Order: sequence, then structure tokens, then C-alpha cells
Amino acid sequence: MGGPEIDRLVGLLAKLPGLGPRSARRAALKLLQQPDTRMLPLAQALVEAAKAVKHCHICGNLDAQDPCTICADPNRDRSLICVVEGVGDLWAIERAGAHRGLYHVLGGVLSPLGGIGPEDLNLGPLLTRLADGTVTEVILALGATVDGAATVHWLSERLAGAGVAVSRVAHGVPMGGALEVLDDGTLSTALRARRPA
Amino acid sequence: MGGPEIDRLVGLLAKLPGLGPRSARRAALKLLQQPDTRMLPLAQALVEAAKAVKHCHICGNLDAQDPCTICADPNRDRSLICVVEGVGDLWAIERAGAHRGLYHVLGGVLSPLGGIGPEDLNLGPLLTRLADGTVTEVILALGATVDGAATVHWLSERLAGAGVAVSRVAHGVPMGGALEVLDDGTLSTALRARRPA
Repeated sequence: MGGPEIDRLVGLLAKLPGLGPRSARRAALKLLQQPDTRMLPLAQALVEAAKAVKHCHICGNLDAQDPCTICADPNRDRSLICVVEGVGDLWAIERAGAHRGLYHVLGGVLSPLGGIGPEDLNLGPLLTRLADGTVTEVILALGATVDGAATVHWLSERLAGAGVAVSRVAHGVPMGGALEVLDDGTLSTALRARRPA
Repeated sequence: MGGPEIDRLVGLLAKLPGLGPRSARRAALKLLQQPDTRMLPLAQALVEAAKAVKHCHICGNLDAQDPCTICADPNRDRSLICVVEGVGDLWAIERAGAHRGLYHVLGGVLSPLGGIGPEDLNLGPLLTRLADGTVTEVILALGATVDGAATVHWLSERLAGAGVAVSRVAHGVPMGGALEVLDDGTLSTALRARRPA
């Protein structure tokens, strides 16, 4: 529809998470109707971000500076490292303002089915960061999936000799969540992990 | 999060229909993780489409050629013009393969509340297209909204003297639709517009 340029644009937009073929066409149409105010600015933003943004060599975060804004921030608590699977998790925790320490992006979780083994994870640099004794606690903030839980187990064993406390995020009923719509696993976990009221 | 380049990219992505702030961040992250295979190709596709795609001077469609692929196609039925509100409607009808004639993009529907009057619609060029007698029927394929219905009414009066048959698309129960979930307006219309079985 409308020539190869439109087809190509729709095809690339449709690969973005959250957009399917139908919404990609709507997005392309919206862009095509405002080439100068929407389309070219987006193209420019993509090029500039691709040029500027790199992985932080310390923690693995994506940022326009290296070390990243968080690693370079003198006000962050350097004794606390929060280990996350990906940069999206880091962003989510930052948006929530839920952590005042540093991060370490693991780049994945162990997944025998997905072919992801220990050697695929960004573990070496984490061990290096723990070596000088500044860090006193590592918080494992991985997803409550089978692979996430296996990775938490494996990591806590690997970190046992590093001289730091190792903790993991709590699992239970999400805030604002009604009990009746929760899955069995979450309900069982929430009951088992009950605390004094 | 991650510097002004990322913020700017997320902000522009969040303005696309179908993406909100949260999905725009996910999309930006996905792109940032594959700068060369996803991000720069998308930037290039945007620039190329912005350069190549124009409105067809005959029907108002968006296409890399002018007249557009449809207006230039010798196999289309030139006696039939389907009037639509926007290019998205034209694309939808084409995807359905539901029309073998030509199109005319009105560029909107009359909307007293939205401040859209007759002078804002692409009507003059339609009247010009009807002048040489090739066209025998104009199909009004506008949305079944209050504004759409008012525009159909107004257009059929304006086209009364043009020597062409004027029709409008049927309204009723959508194909595959269960009656019990339909709104009252659609049910009433479907019953009133009943036909011999």
C-alpha cells in the first residue's frame, strides 16, 4: 500500500514491542501526515541516541555517559548493589525511586531451555566490583519465574564466599492487588512468607 | 533516565498511536540494544518515507508516486469513487479487497464541535472529478458516528445535482459479532435495516 517506502516503515515499526501490524500502520500514517514535525524529528532522535548511548562498563546500564549517571553519582550508596536481569528492570526500579544504591545488569537469567548458561551472564565484573570491600550487600532483584529463581539460587551460592550479605526481593501480593484474581503460586508464596501484622 | 537522547527518543515514541510512556520506554530499550540492526534502519526508513511519500493530487491518498498507485492503475473501475474520511480508511478498504474503483479522501468529516466546516473538506476536487461524466456512482464510506452521518447527509445533498448515483455503506451487525455484546444503536439500526433472508 503506497509504495515500498511505506511498506518498509510499517514493517520496521511493527517489530517494536507493543506494536503489531495494524497499529504499526496507524503509527506510520500518523507520521506520514506530519513529516516535518514528527517523522524527521523521530529519525534524528534515533540517530542521535544510537550514536550517544552506550553500555556502562561498570554496571551494564545504557546511558549517554560512561560510567553511567548512576555509577557516577556521588550521592548513591556505594555499599549496596542491586542485581537485575536487564536495563528495563533497572529503569523500572529507578522510576519507583525504590533503590538508592548502585546496580549491576546481569544481561539475562540462567535458562537451560533458552541455552543461557553461567558463561553468558555478566558475572565476572560483579565479582570484581565486590573485591575491594566497599560493597556490603547485594540485592538480587530478578523476576519470580522458574529461571529467575534458579538464577537467584545459583548467584547466592556463587556470592557466598565474597564477604557480602546477599538478599533477594520479597514475593507476595502486589500492592493494590485483589486476592481473588491472583494466581495460585503467588497466593501460596504470600501465605508462606507471612509476617507479623 | 540515561541522558537527554534517551528521554527525547522515548518522548517521541510515546506520541505514536498505540504506544504510551511505558511501552515507548520498552520500545526505546529494544532499539537501543540493537542500534545497527534496528535503530538506524528505522531512522533511515523514516527519512526515506518522509522524502518519497506525498499526497496524490487527484484523490488525496498517500503514496510514493503522484498520481497514486490506485489512481494510476488502468485496471480499476473509473466509474466508481469511494469517498472516505482519511487515508487509514482507504488502506483498510484496500486490505479487505472490498472495492475495485477509485477513492477520494475527504480529509475529515463535518464537526461543529471540532470546528470543521464544509470549507475544510476536500470537496472541490471531487466535484471536478465528477464533471466529465466518467463517474456514475459515488459511495460514501464514512464512519457511523454523529459527525459521519451528518457529513453523509450534507454530501448527498451537495452531490444531488452532479448526475451520479450516491450511496452509503450499510450499517448493521459486524461479521462475526455476537448480538448480545452489541450496543443499542447498532442493534436498532440492524433491525430497522433488515432485509429478506
